[in-house]
Amino acid sequence: MSVEIVEVGPRDGLQNQAETLSTADKIDFIERLIAAGAKRLEIASFVNPARVPQMADAEAVIAGIPARPGVTRVGLVLNLRGVERALASGVDEIGLVAVASDVFGVKNQKQTRDASVEMAVSAIEMARDAGVPAQVTIATAFGCPFEGEVPVAHVTEMARRLAAAQPKEIALADTIGVAVPAQVERVFRAVAAAAPGVTLRAHFHNTRNTGIANALKAFECGVTRLDASTGGIGGCPFAPRATGNIGTEDLVYALERSGVETGFDLEKLTAIAPWLAQKLKIAEVPAMLSRAGGFPRGA
Amino acid sequence: MSVEIVEVGPRDGLQNQAETLSTADKIDFIERLIAAGAKRLEIASFVNPARVPQMADAEAVIAGIPARPGVTRVGLVLNLRGVERALASGVDEIGLVAVASDVFGVKNQKQTRDASVEMAVSAIEMARDAGVPAQVTIATAFGCPFEGEVPVAHVTEMARRLAAAQPKEIALADTIGVAVPAQVERVFRAVAAAAPGVTLRAHFHNTRNTGIANALKAFECGVTRLDASTGGIGGCPFAPRATGNIGTEDLVYALERSGVETGFDLEKLTAIAPWLAQKLKIAEVPAMLSRAGGFPRGA
Repeated sequence: MSVEIVEVGPRDGLQNQAETLSTADKIDFIERLIAAGAKRLEIASFVNPARVPQMADAEAVIAGIPARPGVTRVGLVLNLRGVERALASGVDEIGLVAVASDVFGVKNQKQTRDASVEMAVSAIEMARDAGVPAQVTIATAFGCPFEGEVPVAHVTEMARRLAAAQPKEIALADTIGVAVPAQVERVFRAVAAAAPGVTLRAHFHNTRNTGIANALKAFECGVTRLDASTGGIGGCPFAPRATGNIGTEDLVYALERSGVETGFDLEKLTAIAPWLAQKLKIAEVPAMLSRAGGFPRGA
Repeated sequence: MSVEIVEVGPRDGLQNQAETLSTADKIDFIERLIAAGAKRLEIASFVNPARVPQMADAEAVIAGIPARPGVTRVGLVLNLRGVERALASGVDEIGLVAVASDVFGVKNQKQTRDASVEMAVSAIEMARDAGVPAQVTIATAFGCPFEGEVPVAHVTEMARRLAAAQPKEIALADTIGVAVPAQVERVFRAVAAAAPGVTLRAHFHNTRNTGIANALKAFECGVTRLDASTGGIGGCPFAPRATGNIGTEDLVYALERSGVETGFDLEKLTAIAPWLAQKLKIAEVPAMLSRAGGFPRGA
């Protein structure tokens, strides 16, 4: 058994930090992640630098991480202008976001649910024409900070429409960290039934201590692609009180102790945490492995 | 569906804190917990005050929480001298600890695995003679800080011997927070098979971010009694780098959002966290609900 972990620290992780890393530090971070085993990484977001200043150097970051075999550099975009920028930068893959909640969508990317699906469908086609794979994340799939409950029918209907455009995969995101495993199972099974044959990915935040439980439940339901952020840093600038992604090192620990291969070197990965905390000027990262240590070796 | 949460904050939670609460503050803490819905609480430990000074006022705490219908006051003991003290204090229930690892057992309670089982069997009989129910926790059931892997056969053999003494229940404890859900399922199923008919309880620490995942998996396996500590405080003085129990408020959130009743009032419970942090002179408690808030209500 194995899982593909998509490392989102350099994008989702950094975008909501008070401290903005220099381009050189971002490149250093990404190279450390690749050295620790990351093979697919979301490393930039082609959004309005006035709205997310932490991501203003997207092109420079992509340029600083040369393409190489076995490594996929993903760029996130929220509109067609972003697709143009991402394609011009030479990313290996484009990540799109459709929003299951109208209120959140308008705040996050000035798009209603419908408009975000239409944008994603057009973007998938644009990327395909350029020979670049594109995948799409359904944000706030488990709850909205403004609307509360998000009907599963909204998520399945979006998945159906998005699947018709044949993206590389569809991810369900718990943008604000409200999901619990029982809901993860329910929503993923509903989406798998609504969009049969589509590869699914899961994106969880550990805002209420359910993040790792949700990721492991998604895996139990057959989802073998999981987003995580080294250090567990992150959060969404447009979601109140949002906190970090599940920590890559914590997820690797949980999976490897369950007999699931991740391709990461846990020692190398865990060693990134104190470096990252220092660069971000925080006392410690939210992920716990660097403090707790791995499974004790015994005498 | 419902779960009985055993609140262990006043014992396991407080015993490893740098700041020792006054007896009055402990009583205040316990009354706040009862007002928030706690019905079974581990509120004292009758151990050597020279070794665990935070618990030196066990008798005074029990005396300060008068017996009342619908509330069970549990006292923890590690030896027969402790059983005598607990019985004299008027506790409603005695909690015992047997240790699955010899090295940990000698450090924690000066007993090997065998000796701890013998102590527990004698203690269950002593308590029964006094008309007080006793239950026993198998500590380090999922891993030992000193020995590493703990053979499942050791745990099942202990459970068999303990079950013969007819305790109120047997708990499996992940004393150092190393377990993952796949292991929880494996060990609980093995113990259920080895000691058929015995009521099981689970005790998890959130040291590597797997605590809530483990608790929910135990519940999936039929375990309907779960230990948790309000604020997620806690740790074992004799286990290096041990950190807090799973937070009661985080567990209540995860269970209630899964449609499982806990009997707790989440708002009242969550309101205890800032009070507790202030009393313990810590910036914030490890549990996350008081910072994140419950599920958003919507507009």
